[in-house]
Formats: sequence, C-alpha cells, structure tokens
Amino acid sequence: MTCLVARLATRLEALVIEMPEPLRIGLLGRGTVGGAFEQLIGERAEAVAATTGRMPELAGILTRSSGDFEQILNDSDVIVEVMGGLDPARDYVEQALKAGRHVVTANKQLLSRHGDELWALAAEHGVQLRFEAAVAGVVPVIAVLTGSLAGARIDRIHGIVNGTTNFILSEMARTGASYAEALAEAQSLGYAEADPTEDVAGIDAAAKIAILARLAFGTPVHVDQVGREGIERIQPDDIEYASELGLGLKLVASAERVGDALSVRVHPVFLYPGHPLASVDGAFNAVTIESEAVTDITLAGPGAGGIQTASALLGDIAAIAAGQSLLLAPIDNPLPLADDAESAYYLHLEVEDQPGVLAQVAALLGEHEISVRSVVQRGLGANARLVMVSHRVADSRFAAALEQIAQLDALKSQPRAIRVLEEEFGG
Amino acid sequence: MTCLVARLATRLEALVIEMPEPLRIGLLGRGTVGGAFEQLIGERAEAVAATTGRMPELAGILTRSSGDFEQILNDSDVIVEVMGGLDPARDYVEQALKAGRHVVTANKQLLSRHGDELWALAAEHGVQLRFEAAVAGVVPVIAVLTGSLAGARIDRIHGIVNGTTNFILSEMARTGASYAEALAEAQSLGYAEADPTEDVAGIDAAAKIAILARLAFGTPVHVDQVGREGIERIQPDDIEYASELGLGLKLVASAERVGDALSVRVHPVFLYPGHPLASVDGAFNAVTIESEAVTDITLAGPGAGGIQTASALLGDIAAIAAGQSLLLAPIDNPLPLADDAESAYYLHLEVEDQPGVLAQVAALLGEHEISVRSVVQRGLGANARLVMVSHRVADSRFAAALEQIAQLDALKSQPRAIRVLEEEFGG
Repeated sequence: MTCLVARLATRLEALVIEMPEPLRIGLLGRGTVGGAFEQLIGERAEAVAATTGRMPELAGILTRSSGDFEQILNDSDVIVEVMGGLDPARDYVEQALKAGRHVVTANKQLLSRHGDELWALAAEHGVQLRFEAAVAGVVPVIAVLTGSLAGARIDRIHGIVNGTTNFILSEMARTGASYAEALAEAQSLGYAEADPTEDVAGIDAAAKIAILARLAFGTPVHVDQVGREGIERIQPDDIEYASELGLGLKLVASAERVGDALSVRVHPVFLYPGHPLASVDGAFNAVTIESEAVTDITLAGPGAGGIQTASALLGDIAAIAAGQSLLLAPIDNPLPLADDAESAYYLHLEVEDQPGVLAQVAALLGEHEISVRSVVQRGLGANARLVMVSHRVADSRFAAALEQIAQLDALKSQPRAIRVLEEEFGG
Repeated sequence: MTCLVARLATRLEALVIEMPEPLRIGLLGRGTVGGAFEQLIGERAEAVAATTGRMPELAGILTRSSGDFEQILNDSDVIVEVMGGLDPARDYVEQALKAGRHVVTANKQLLSRHGDELWALAAEHGVQLRFEAAVAGVVPVIAVLTGSLAGARIDRIHGIVNGTTNFILSEMARTGASYAEALAEAQSLGYAEADPTEDVAGIDAAAKIAILARLAFGTPVHVDQVGREGIERIQPDDIEYASELGLGLKLVASAERVGDALSVRVHPVFLYPGHPLASVDGAFNAVTIESEAVTDITLAGPGAGGIQTASALLGDIAAIAAGQSLLLAPIDNPLPLADDAESAYYLHLEVEDQPGVLAQVAALLGEHEISVRSVVQRGLGANARLVMVSHRVADSRFAAALEQIAQLDALKSQPRAIRVLEEEFGG
C-alpha cells in the first residue's frame, strides 16, 4: 500500500516536472478579434506548449463593461491589446511595458503614431512589443521584414493592405458597378464600416505602410507623413478603358527609395497583369518586397477576419513563449522623406476628333520630357477618346504637364490621370 | 599633450566598446551560391551587425582544391554548408554540430534523408541547424512555418518548389513547344542541368516537400516516401485542351491531411485560374499554406539563383547572430503516411464519334462513384475528343475506373489522366 502511494507520488512528480510553465495572458478587448483569440488559445495552447515549452493561458479579459486593468496587468506575463484606437490603448500599453510585461498588439493607429517611443520603452524595460497582426492580418510581413530579410537591403515595398478598398475595386472591375454601388455592397457584406472614410480615403493603408517603412528602411514614418489619395473618385470608365491596355486597378501602399530619400504613399494605381499584386482580388491582402539581391518576394493571404487576426496574435505569443527576440532595424541612419516621387501615368482625355489634337498633347508631354509607352485613340462621334500610358516621370513634372493639357481648347472634359505601377526587377 | 593622449585613448576605448563581437563563418563550398554568399557578406555585414549586435565575417572557405576542414571548423562559430550532396556534406555537418558549431545549410538532399538525426544532434550540442535556403530559395517558407505559424494547425501545403520544371511547363503553355523542345530551351538558358532527371522527375521537389511536411505536421518524411510523378510525359495537347476549361498546368508538391493520415506527393496538376499558384510563371517558386483558421497564405519569389539563395543563408546567419532559436514542432505525435490520397482529375479521351460513347464512360465513372464537374466533347472527323474534369475522388478509385475505361472498344488511344487541384478554403 505504502509502496503504491510512493509509486503514485513518483509518477505525479514526473507529471509535474513535465508540465510546461504557463505564459499568462491579459487580453484587452473582446470584440471580433478578441473573441476569436480567446477561442484560439483554448484550441491551440497545447500545440504552442509542445513547440515552445510554455503553455499560454488567459489570466483575465478587459471589456468595456468588465475587468480591472490593474488586476489583469498584475496577473499577466503578456498583454494582448486588441481594443484599437489611441485612448486608452496607448496608456495601457505604456503601463504594461513599464511594468515589465511583453505586449502583443494589432493596433496600427497606435504604432504608426507612437511606434518608436513604445519600442524604445519596451527595450528600456527588457520586454517586447510585437505587432504581426497590425499589418495585413495573418500575412507574415512583419516576421519576414524583421526576420528573413533582416540582413537585406530593401529597395521598395508595394502592398494591397486594405481589404475593404480591394473588395470595392474588385467588384467595380467584375460587375461594372459604380463606386457608390460597390461601397454599398461592401457595407451590406460587413466588409466596410457605416462611415468608410478610414478605409476608402487610404488612412488605414497609410498607417500600415508607415509601419512597414519603419521596418524596411530604419526610418520612423508618422502616418500623417504618408502621401495619400483614396478611391472615392474612381469611375467605372477608368477601370474599363484601362483594361483595354491590360491594366487592373488596385489601391496600393508604397514605400520606396527615390535617390537617397524615402517616398511613402498610398494611391490607386494600375497594374500590368504580370505584377504579383495584379491577381490579388476581393478582401485579400498582399505585400511585395523588392530588393536588387532577392528580386521580389510576395506574401499574400487574408488581411482581416477575427480568426485570421487572432492567428497572427498567437504567432507573436508563440515567439514570446519561445523567448525569441524581435529584431527592429536601428534608426541610426534614417532616410529623409522625399518631396517628390516618380510614377508612370495613365492619362485619359476626351477631345474633339480633329487633326492635330494628339500632336498637341504629345508636344506638351515632350516639353516636360515625359515619354509615352502606349496610346489608344478611338472615335466617339464628334469626339475622340485618347488613352495614354507614360513611362516613369517625377510626379511634379507630370502635374505641370497635366495642368497645361487641361487648358487645351480641344479638351471636352477634365483630363483623368492615374498612376501605373512598373516593376523594377524581373518577375 | 598628455591630456590629448588621454582623450584619444578614451575615444578609442569608446570605439572598441562599440565594436560588435564577430560571428566567424566557415564556408563549405564556393560554387554559384557560395560565391554569391561571400560577396553578400562583404556588402551586408554592417547592416547585420547594426540589427543583431554581431558582425558576420568569413573565417575560412573550403573548396574542392583548397582549405582544410579541421582548421576552418576550429576558426568558426558557424558553418555554412553549400556543397550539396550527401558525401562529404553529411560528415562535415555532423562534425560541426558535435564541435558545438551552428550550421546553416542549403542542402535539401541531406535534410530530406537525415534531417531529424541532425536536428537532434544539434539540440544535443546546444546549437542550431538552420536551412531556409534549402526550400524555395529566398521565399521565407521555413521561417513562416517555424515562426508565424508555429501555433497554427495546418491542413495542407501546396508548392511550386522547382523552378526548372515550372519554366518548362510555362514555356510549353506559352509557345506550344513540346516537352523536349522546352527542356532544350531551359538547358540552353542554364535553368536545367545536362542530366535533368533530378528536376523533371520531381526528385528535387520531393526532397523539398518532405522537409516542409516535417515542419508543418511534426512528422518525419523521408524523400523516398514521397509519391512522385514527373513532367516527362506531358504533351502539348494536354496543356492546350485543358486551357479550354480554364486550367493551367504546374508541377505541384503537396503535403496534406487525409483523414488522420498524411499524404505527401509531387505530381503535375491542373490549376483553376483563381488558385494562388496559377499565376506563378517561369523560374519562380511559391508555396500556399492552408489552414482552416488562416484560410491560406501564399509566399512567392525567386526559388533559385546564387544571390537569392545567398540572401536566404544570410537571413539564417542574422537569426543566429541575434541569438534567435529555431522552433521545430516536436515529433511526439507523428501522423501515419496515407496509402491513398484524393484528387480531382482531368480525363482526356479520343473516341469513335458514335452515339453512346459518352454514356459508356459516364456509366463507368458512376459505378466508381466519381462525379463529373465539367465535360467538353468535340468532333474530329470520324473521332471525337472527350475532356472531362471530375470532383475529388480517392486515387485508387479513379485508377480502377481508368483501367476499365481504357478497355472500351470505342477508345482510339490510351486515355490521359492528370490531377486537378481544387481549393478547399476561400480564396
């Protein structure tokens, strides 16, 4: 009998020794993402423990109506912040870092405004501030920029990082719907908010590319420094005519070296069919990272969704559980932000169908040293439609030419100009 | 004067303190990849040091004609093995791990045969064996499987992981060339070896999917356990007829759960145009990782090339320099390998153009419970061409039906059957 007890005790001891140490998580926010994260932890905790040696477990949840932040902080090793917005998220994240807690966040607004202060605060207190879920959901672009490409010299990043606008543009292209119709469709499916400004004006995408630019170029970029143009003024005609040239329209966020400076922008652009982003449709996200050494790497997948974003959070939790550190490029040599950028342009003109109009337009482009890559001219009764695509030119130079073209007598309506993305390296 | 010397000494001291500790690298092999790595270290060492705190530097290079392995091992913290093949690479890697050196390798043959022995050896000696460059070059699929997705339950991986065969199939589709012509073109461009067997028979792809399967499913898979069919028997007609159904042909390596078992295979498959792998052309590689939680993530980029592969090696070096560990899923619960797998099929028959042939074929498919997704029938003088695509069916069941169909009197030539990839989750 004593012998049996002793044997049991020995076995229990063995079990206790093999029990992985817990990683206690305080969850701030239980909306779609927070709820999905809570569920995912329940399902995947053991798999994380098997790989990392620590068992993630929820220590407390703060919602609008329940939970006490101080208490949750006290009971946690890691804080997962999925409240969104700046207030009170910023204060909670700061308090958590100061208290020596790791933080995992999906908050792009916060990081695109106060990222470097917060990363510095984390470093000062010997903890991590991870954020895979803040950009392109489960598409592992943060992991790749801070990991696999930590030693690479990156020249250019282009991303479709907002699912709402990509869905709207995909619908416009697929059905010929107007912007307003496609937006209403997105709203009815839950892909767009009642007030869609944050998405359609490119603000959300600007926050995300600001974060990517910081990682890829070691240069802090505030969301307000990102050049920005939304999709609100895109017309079905633009999409239809450009498709004659084989071009498809996307809202693209870009960060690229222009000479010794850094240009960071969000705008609608036409893509050639071979471009890695051209086939990314609907609510999907994708990011292409270009470098002379690696040509280009494209990462694609669902950019939003509760369970997908929760998976990205769990990846960060696993990294912390495994004691991985986060490699942020130092900002000891930041690039100045470019005043001007370079783009190829699609130009669409409705003109009187009379001899010499094409020559006038071509002459004005020539004066500004803008070279033309392709032209489609087509008669429309007394008028003609002239669609041209230029090679790369400084944006300021193109704007000057466009101003003069807009004053031509033969023009029947305002000229329409949209950027075209050209690939720099193979593909 | 003394004062000046003292000040200089203080400044020198500050400089010395700030000098990052070196990470000494012994390079085994100086072919295309080794040479590119040597150059890349020269260019990017400082950037790696700025991010990781350790400065990579070459301590010695072993080539066929120069260098002494013992000496190089002695002088190094990390061994980079880019010799390829098993002998003497395996011996060198084992010696390095036993001597407490980290190893970074691009050797898929070695890992798909002896990976788990070597990872265990590394763990035993407290060092790492990293291998991002072994699969899909600079496409960070290893990093994503061992990092971002460390906590996810993966259901399925599909990859275009061999650039040579993807180039040949892209050329056949683009130009209508025969297999032999497209192979000759690939050889003249340096994309294929004089003896192309390793690539065209799917052996290279099998080694790579064996490694990915090990990571994604915690199940050791030997390259010889991978079901394999090459592209040598693909005819231009197959590609042409299938394009009528909107299908494009790729050599795809797959690892997927089938019930409670794991199926790991390489074979030519037709893809629908919406599939993330369908637009991957030429020598590019791409891997799609599917999971119910994350839908699917696709990673694409150059799969080969000296400088690209060298970039992948450098990413591993940076991880080691930063003290990151490599998270391999434990193999405490491996899946049995499946005897049978499931596929949808494209079936191409040349038959006498007489009433009842379609009915006979349909009846045989029905008897084996194979349901048909689409049919194209077309007259060809006295004969007719019948092209059908089935829904998913057990491979053994389809094979049984095919055997009976091949015996039909109305058949004018051997039936041709090629798998079709169907997406499981959205996209």
